[in-house]
Amino acid sequence: MFFEGAEKKCEIITSNAVQSLIEKPLSFWEDLVSASGATILSSIENEQSTAFLLSESSLFVWSNRILMLTCGETKLVESAELFIDSIGVKNIDGLFFQRKNEYRSALQSTDFMDDAKRLSKKIEGQVVCFGKLHSHHTLLFHTSKKLELAEQDKTCELLMYDMEPEVLSFLTRENLRTKELRDFFKLDSLFSGFSFDDFIFRPYGYSLNGIKEDQYFTVHVTPQEVCPYVSFETNLQIGEESLSILQYFIDRLRPGSFDVLRFNGHKDLFFGDDYIRAIHVKDELSIAYSVDFSYFNKRQKEPELMYSYKNIEEI
Amino acid sequence: MFFEGAEKKCEIITSNAVQSLIEKPLSFWEDLVSASGATILSSIENEQSTAFLLSESSLFVWSNRILMLTCGETKLVESAELFIDSIGVKNIDGLFFQRKNEYRSALQSTDFMDDAKRLSKKIEGQVVCFGKLHSHHTLLFHTSKKLELAEQDKTCELLMYDMEPEVLSFLTRENLRTKELRDFFKLDSLFSGFSFDDFIFRPYGYSLNGIKEDQYFTVHVTPQEVCPYVSFETNLQIGEESLSILQYFIDRLRPGSFDVLRFNGHKDLFFGDDYIRAIHVKDELSIAYSVDFSYFNKRQKEPELMYSYKNIEEI
Repeated sequence: MFFEGAEKKCEIITSNAVQSLIEKPLSFWEDLVSASGATILSSIENEQSTAFLLSESSLFVWSNRILMLTCGETKLVESAELFIDSIGVKNIDGLFFQRKNEYRSALQSTDFMDDAKRLSKKIEGQVVCFGKLHSHHTLLFHTSKKLELAEQDKTCELLMYDMEPEVLSFLTRENLRTKELRDFFKLDSLFSGFSFDDFIFRPYGYSLNGIKEDQYFTVHVTPQEVCPYVSFETNLQIGEESLSILQYFIDRLRPGSFDVLRFNGHKDLFFGDDYIRAIHVKDELSIAYSVDFSYFNKRQKEPELMYSYKNIEEI
Repeated sequence: MFFEGAEKKCEIITSNAVQSLIEKPLSFWEDLVSASGATILSSIENEQSTAFLLSESSLFVWSNRILMLTCGETKLVESAELFIDSIGVKNIDGLFFQRKNEYRSALQSTDFMDDAKRLSKKIEGQVVCFGKLHSHHTLLFHTSKKLELAEQDKTCELLMYDMEPEVLSFLTRENLRTKELRDFFKLDSLFSGFSFDDFIFRPYGYSLNGIKEDQYFTVHVTPQEVCPYVSFETNLQIGEESLSILQYFIDRLRPGSFDVLRFNGHKDLFFGDDYIRAIHVKDELSIAYSVDFSYFNKRQKEPELMYSYKNIEEI
């Protein structure tokens, strides 16, 4: 069965005039998540943040910021609208709403452009595209108001496609346990000192949130045969250290292709001669964030075979 | 305004028991085209074929074969169903129904998988995919019955994206005339002996059909800024000669990327060091057609800038 792994992402920054968001009751977050058509599975927290694991991806909450990621056929724009209405638009300092190219966008109830039009009726913003509309890309709606300290706000997304068959046969193994997946991703050593919260979906799929102080990372795995996909996202400092984390994920999963999207990440990327950069976009958002988007393809030595669908009814 | 240039394509081969299709009255073809939501603009014919220029692309008719291409938000699957019902499924020797990755598939009323399910209820067939679902690809539904003389049936499609700004400014020039476009594409010398039928859409867009004996070619240009696209398709022998035609189109339009899809075309492709092949699929359909799909990317020397949408309301 098909499942859309590609995430929609919304990040909202509230002004200091607003009550700390981590003091909001659980029911507030339950309503917010439910507006998208998702549910909360579990949560972890520390003094600076709460991380909710959702039936479709993740929600992170800090004192004046939320980050919500949802996949499948969820309607993230409805959660964004509900949050704006609850907090009041005058208390929103910044909003980012982003969608990447989906596998089967015709199954989605809205496309990015519809979402952007809806958001722009509530809050002033602009739309930009990194990459190619007919190939890998990310579309972003962002508010126009300049953000203070924007340049300290670093995030990095690594979106991996078409992992090798041996990797997929591990990721789709029956009765896989979270311990085996944490070991596979070497999470204890790569993210030492982090608290983890993870969940295995049946028959397939894995989600993990990790937090440490105000840092987060999240991993989502949808290993379905027609559209295998693994995403990793973090606000760890995008220096030498986290580039080696990206390299570890790529070496471990050996994707056929992957995107790297960085906000305020400057170091140039290189992942060995096996991967060719097919798209590279580097620019500045009007609100003082730099953006760096790259799409890498594995060098293909021999022609591949076509993919034959086994059963039309099951598509 | 957005216009989906990416074509849907349907080719149907009837058995010899059926009356020659070129003897069918115009009203038959008008009804067929109208089932997709398109209309006939004009036509040309010779002893072996008729070529209709449509409001959205083209329809070619031979004695025992039709080829229909439609773009925009047309519903080509409805024309395919109507044709099967009119002719009778027992008189259909072969059917190919194909859709490539679209820019904004969420605006389409169906996706390929829906179409394939509908067709498989009328006629037995299989589904295959060339390329990557999350990137450039073509999905094909084809019937299972072995086709006689299949290996003589050669077609080649060249689908070009993101032409250079100077090319686009020519293609979107006000009051452009068909003569200028025919000269730009050097059609008189590349396709000598062919009859042409072409049309310029306002504000933008160009369609052309050409026929000579049982040979055809067709060119469709949708030069809109957010998603510039030019397609070329032909059944000319895919030997030295027509590869040089592909090279001419690529040199003239300088696309940022392009796909080449060939049925029964065997010569290996190379378009100079400026273009890297990012995807290559080579395989045999169960009905004895060979397939060769390639996606080429222009080598990117410097990072590009993001694309900024001017007005959200107009997206």
